[in-house]
Amino acid sequence: MKLTAKGRATRQRIIEGAAQHLRSEDASGVTLDDIRAITGTSKGQIFHYFPDGKEELFLEVAKYEADRVLEDQQPHLGALTSWPAWERWRDSVVARYRAQGRSCPLGTLLGQVVTTPGAAEVVTVMTEQWQAHVRAGIAAMQAAGLVRPELDGSRVAGAFIAGIQGGVQMLRSTGDTWHLEAALDTLIEHLKR
Amino acid sequence: MKLTAKGRATRQRIIEGAAQHLRSEDASGVTLDDIRAITGTSKGQIFHYFPDGKEELFLEVAKYEADRVLEDQQPHLGALTSWPAWERWRDSVVARYRAQGRSCPLGTLLGQVVTTPGAAEVVTVMTEQWQAHVRAGIAAMQAAGLVRPELDGSRVAGAFIAGIQGGVQMLRSTGDTWHLEAALDTLIEHLKR
Repeated sequence: MKLTAKGRATRQRIIEGAAQHLRSEDASGVTLDDIRAITGTSKGQIFHYFPDGKEELFLEVAKYEADRVLEDQQPHLGALTSWPAWERWRDSVVARYRAQGRSCPLGTLLGQVVTTPGAAEVVTVMTEQWQAHVRAGIAAMQAAGLVRPELDGSRVAGAFIAGIQGGVQMLRSTGDTWHLEAALDTLIEHLKR
Repeated sequence: MKLTAKGRATRQRIIEGAAQHLRSEDASGVTLDDIRAITGTSKGQIFHYFPDGKEELFLEVAKYEADRVLEDQQPHLGALTSWPAWERWRDSVVARYRAQGRSCPLGTLLGQVVTTPGAAEVVTVMTEQWQAHVRAGIAAMQAAGLVRPELDGSRVAGAFIAGIQGGVQMLRSTGDTWHLEAALDTLIEHLKR
């Protein structure tokens, strides 16, 4: 669907309004009428921008939340070129998830659209981008002679992604960032040795 | 509830029969009548051993599956006292989850009993035991002079648990054990350095 600049802005306003609402509400109970009321849009507008209805809107909100996961780590994640930069990134990841606590807007949303085409891709695309940033950071550190050249950067970047995902999962069940911090600190320590 | 040896055996037979059935079926669609039919038990027997019904039985099946997660890693997990032992353990973890693939009996079951008292504890207890085994393995390697004494074994054991949990989560979305292997190999490499 081709949209005018104004159309794109309206569509984005609906997505962001829905995202904000879904962060504080149980996603399974939220209806399109709730979203309409909150974003001050008509039924016609919602279906104009999201012809497939709730599932399509929720998937777009999930994509928006996935983008935020990465944005919340910037500018650190995109410039892992010194040890202080790695520590700032580490702190930004821990702070982000500590603030989120046991809740996980992205996970909850994806649970609602699990059978929607494209839902599985949201996480895959996000983790691929995330991992590529970490991989680029390791390569930059190797180019600067700060990380040993024989280290397999791709594999260690994969370990970071696994460690963060698992740390966040542990946070969701324990309410504590301890595992997330243990994973990040151990892997940064591994880069340094 | 005090049970005779015969009672305990019957109860265990119901749990194991239910576990096997739930591994191949969508847990949300399975009823107590299905379990009765499969295990050849009467309604009275089921409610005798599981007075709270389906939720109680499913929770017991979840505990059984959690025990199996650890048992499938034995005897390696309980004797991480040499580098070959760590590699055998690593291989047993990867083989176990590769065989399981995208499905996750424990995760699916816990999704069914999420509001049942004790459900959250199943994962917490399992990961604590798992982490304690890894922690003991690192301590044994340090005592043998095979791992540097200044390494914080508790924290690195936590990183293993996070990396495995996240690796399994990535397997569930990608169908590939690559992240799980990257996490295990990187952390074992970290112990060796």
